[in-house]
Amino acid sequence: MATVIAGDSSKRKLLSVHGLLERTKTMPMSLWRSLRKVGRDDPRRAIYALKVGTALTLVSLLYLLEPLFQGIGKDAMWAVMTVVVVFEFTAGATFYKGFNRALGTIFAGSLAFFIECIAAELGTVSRAIFVGGSVFLIGFAATYVRFIPRIKKNYDYGVMIFILTFNLITVSSFREPNVLKIARQRLYTIGIGCVVCIFMSLFVFPNWSGEDLHNSTADKIEALARSIEACVTEYFNDDMSKETAERKSTRDTIQKGYRAVLDSKSVEESLASFASWEPRHSSYRYPWQQYVKLGATLRHFAYTAVALHGCLESEIQTPQSVRSLFREPCCRVAGEVSKILRELAMSIRKRQHCPPDILSDNLHDALHALNSSIKSQPRLFLGTKNAQAKSTILAAQTNQHSSYSTTALPSVKTDVSALLDFRSKREHHSERSTLKPTLSKIAILSLEFSEALPFAAFASLLVEMAVRLDLIIDQVEKLAKEAHFKEFTEKNDIKIDVKICDSATVLPTINVACGE
Amino acid sequence: MATVIAGDSSKRKLLSVHGLLERTKTMPMSLWRSLRKVGRDDPRRAIYALKVGTALTLVSLLYLLEPLFQGIGKDAMWAVMTVVVVFEFTAGATFYKGFNRALGTIFAGSLAFFIECIAAELGTVSRAIFVGGSVFLIGFAATYVRFIPRIKKNYDYGVMIFILTFNLITVSSFREPNVLKIARQRLYTIGIGCVVCIFMSLFVFPNWSGEDLHNSTADKIEALARSIEACVTEYFNDDMSKETAERKSTRDTIQKGYRAVLDSKSVEESLASFASWEPRHSSYRYPWQQYVKLGATLRHFAYTAVALHGCLESEIQTPQSVRSLFREPCCRVAGEVSKILRELAMSIRKRQHCPPDILSDNLHDALHALNSSIKSQPRLFLGTKNAQAKSTILAAQTNQHSSYSTTALPSVKTDVSALLDFRSKREHHSERSTLKPTLSKIAILSLEFSEALPFAAFASLLVEMAVRLDLIIDQVEKLAKEAHFKEFTEKNDIKIDVKICDSATVLPTINVACGE
Repeated sequence: MATVIAGDSSKRKLLSVHGLLERTKTMPMSLWRSLRKVGRDDPRRAIYALKVGTALTLVSLLYLLEPLFQGIGKDAMWAVMTVVVVFEFTAGATFYKGFNRALGTIFAGSLAFFIECIAAELGTVSRAIFVGGSVFLIGFAATYVRFIPRIKKNYDYGVMIFILTFNLITVSSFREPNVLKIARQRLYTIGIGCVVCIFMSLFVFPNWSGEDLHNSTADKIEALARSIEACVTEYFNDDMSKETAERKSTRDTIQKGYRAVLDSKSVEESLASFASWEPRHSSYRYPWQQYVKLGATLRHFAYTAVALHGCLESEIQTPQSVRSLFREPCCRVAGEVSKILRELAMSIRKRQHCPPDILSDNLHDALHALNSSIKSQPRLFLGTKNAQAKSTILAAQTNQHSSYSTTALPSVKTDVSALLDFRSKREHHSERSTLKPTLSKIAILSLEFSEALPFAAFASLLVEMAVRLDLIIDQVEKLAKEAHFKEFTEKNDIKIDVKICDSATVLPTINVACGE
Repeated sequence: MATVIAGDSSKRKLLSVHGLLERTKTMPMSLWRSLRKVGRDDPRRAIYALKVGTALTLVSLLYLLEPLFQGIGKDAMWAVMTVVVVFEFTAGATFYKGFNRALGTIFAGSLAFFIECIAAELGTVSRAIFVGGSVFLIGFAATYVRFIPRIKKNYDYGVMIFILTFNLITVSSFREPNVLKIARQRLYTIGIGCVVCIFMSLFVFPNWSGEDLHNSTADKIEALARSIEACVTEYFNDDMSKETAERKSTRDTIQKGYRAVLDSKSVEESLASFASWEPRHSSYRYPWQQYVKLGATLRHFAYTAVALHGCLESEIQTPQSVRSLFREPCCRVAGEVSKILRELAMSIRKRQHCPPDILSDNLHDALHALNSSIKSQPRLFLGTKNAQAKSTILAAQTNQHSSYSTTALPSVKTDVSALLDFRSKREHHSERSTLKPTLSKIAILSLEFSEALPFAAFASLLVEMAVRLDLIIDQVEKLAKEAHFKEFTEKNDIKIDVKICDSATVLPTINVACGE
């Protein structure tokens, strides 16, 4: 289609006019849908919008009510401006911005006053030059300072307000002599704006950055657990033929799981920095930075999940017949790993220590089973030279596992069939991810590699994952200690069934304590 | 140390006072150093700061020069404000903000005028209620709309300006009847501010988002090449004992390489969106979005690099004696992959098509060599049952490769030695990454796994990398086509030596065309 249209500009124009009409028709519906989605995803957004409306109305009263206007006058405008700019979604962010705005204004006011004192002694022309020069110098210096990473991270907004206020005061003081009065009035009204914002964000349905950070950490751990489960299920999915909606949703689960963790760095850091501004009813410093460290460990873990997903999307695939030999132990390990992750998420959510036996013997046993099942198939890793022998062994073993794999065992593919196979797989891949690859020499060659090699990578990643889990448990325990989480209680109320791969294997059912 | 101080608050205070004094002393030096670093990292920053200073001085003239002040008056303040808020580092970002500011102001002005027309007919009290109500409603609606992802991405700043301007005009019009005049004057001065900003960013040492995007893409590809080289070199590094500075810098190179790619998503997207605002002297639409797509493919590739690095940091390590058997073919594949990446980066940098023979036979041969060398060692993947046999074979083979590995071949470790070994490795790990892991059952168990398994993962990842390279070449070619890059020229001027692993292997020396 695209190639037909290319170059035919009149047709394109027609199409685009048609498209525009079409879009105008569908727009209200899609707008309505996205508006509803925004509210449904997080109802606090609607409440926040209401709070902003209320705060704006409150500061408007400075204008609308006669007595207030008499006292403050036109400078009430600055209160409105402050509310628009400072009032953020969470209390911590509002504090941060309010503090920065106050700091920037005070610094700028003091400096402007200082400049004004010097300028007052000069004649009109030299005064104009002096003011112009100081505007240039301060503007240059402050802009340059903004590039320092530490200042950019913590005070970027404050420096901007500093430049703004300094310029406004200095320049307007050139025409109005009572600069001190201007500065003071502005400070008052900005103060009123800040107070309104802080009141609204602290006392009216407050949203806490700290809560967000806490919950998102638990969410991310759960997302990782889901991702691993889905990935292993998909890897051992016999029915490769059906590219159904179900399949697509599995892929989405996998990607969403680790993406949630990998993409969270900057959000996490700013939430932690906002959270440190939020007042808490406790004597100790709440360890917000520990959440950031835990996040780093989760990313370290998530890289393994990405690599595991890579095995699924790999251009070289281990045949299902080989895979199914290891289905049971692999699913068991993955099940145990995701079970432990869920327990960790649960204990964070309930702010209590992890169960002391979180690294249960189950994981140990599962790893052991995987180990022995790999050792029991040594010939699998022989090269294609021994292909005949290999396939005979496999055939025999597949019969034993016939409950999993129904397909006959393929002998080693000829080059032509491999090529066709590969081509169809790649086309399929391009549909999914809009990457349209060409068929290269490399791709064909790689199929000649031992088919068991990718499986070895898969198994190795599973084991690596189990080992890295330990690091996560450590960080969670450290968090529990520093944040004074309550002790683990034995009460078992909720049952979490962990079951993946739809196999006959009965996976352990675990009990997780819930509430007291 | 930390445990001694904990709880001893007076001592802590003393220490913190001391620390403060210390910091006050070192601050000017560290500030100076960071200021110099900021400028040295990117000298355009200093130029940008000078430009901001100049622009601010220019709009200050509206106040400072008598005739200009007579014409415009106090509203000149809005020009100052516009410069502070709109003037961004690159031309595209300035355009984007200027456009958003103008759009927001115009919309807000029109709506405010409309509201004013209705309000003018009402009595004082009902008028106040009507204005207050509309402030609330518009504030609520606009804030809510900001959460729609599409609006947040493209018009967040515009909506904020809309709320700000609407409130300022509506509310102040309550006290001043000539709202139309206010709106018009404000629009003039904002226009002046925007014109100054756009002039300064287009015609005075302009910085282009498009250039940044283009160069950063080439940089990222080169960083990936460096990362892969460093990773493979490190993997086959015999001398595991020395945790030297050199070693640390290798690790930094690896991490920096893929981090540069993985963390680039949001920067890339905003650069592409800013770049689309920048004027270009060409008839076709420059395909900025293709850079974003290429970036996605690079991330897809980088995940493999992360997993490769994971093999290096893995808790289960293949012994050096086993690794050294495959040193030569692995290094060759990695060398070829990074060579091709460098060629791609070079052709992007020079805005020319990739050489047609970029997927040379060298990579093909290298993969072939790796394939056969893996097939030639089938017994490696046997389990520990056959440990004795394995180590005999290995010993024989190691003697052949004695130029690489000087250590005697370890037989399979007893559990105790494995435990000690693992503990020291982990302590060492905690030093590096501040993750302090405990020794768990899992960790010990995992050592029992076939030691060749992790190597299989490593080899499999290398092959996967070579295959994914194809996707990158595709995307680069697509970019070259859509951006009308010039044809590839044969002239070979610069030699790039690709040599990794310090092995005796002579890697191919390639010639890359440079300039005409």
